Amino acid sequence: MMTEKTIEQRFGERIRDLRKKAGVSQEELADRAGVHRTYLGGIERGERNPSLKNIYAISRALKVPVSDLFKT
Amino acid sequence: MMTEKTIEQRFGERIRDLRKKAGVSQEELADRAGVHRTYLGGIERGERNPSLKNIYAISRALKVPVSDLFKT
Repeated sequence: MMTEKTIEQRFGERIRDLRKKAGVSQEELADRAGVHRTYLGGIERGERNPSLKNIYAISRALKVPVSDLFKT
Repeated sequence: MMTEKTIEQRFGERIRDLRKKAGVSQEELADRAGVHRTYLGGIERGERNPSLKNIYAISRALKVPVSDLFKT
């Protein structure tokens, strides 16, 4: 049975893609964004529902406009 | 003295602009998004730090792509 991906899962996959394209580890990105590595891991796995402020912190750490995090 | 706007304030102003362009009241938009009117009011005033899921709920209620909420 197919199950549709949640918003959090799609967002997490996008973050992971952008992080890999930037060639940085979870630890490095988490550090730059000022969040814990396990929290970033949870976001990438779609297990977290991050806040506006953390979404911005991640976009800054990835050096991309925040709207890029929502492109498919 | 100039004080820079917070992320939440800029986001809230964008939501208010889009809501007014759509010609809907706070109550109507809150209803569509499944959030309380006072919560939406708090978002528009930049007093709330909404989660990814609520950001999506608002974009759907406004009938715009979520990336539009982050344009200036």
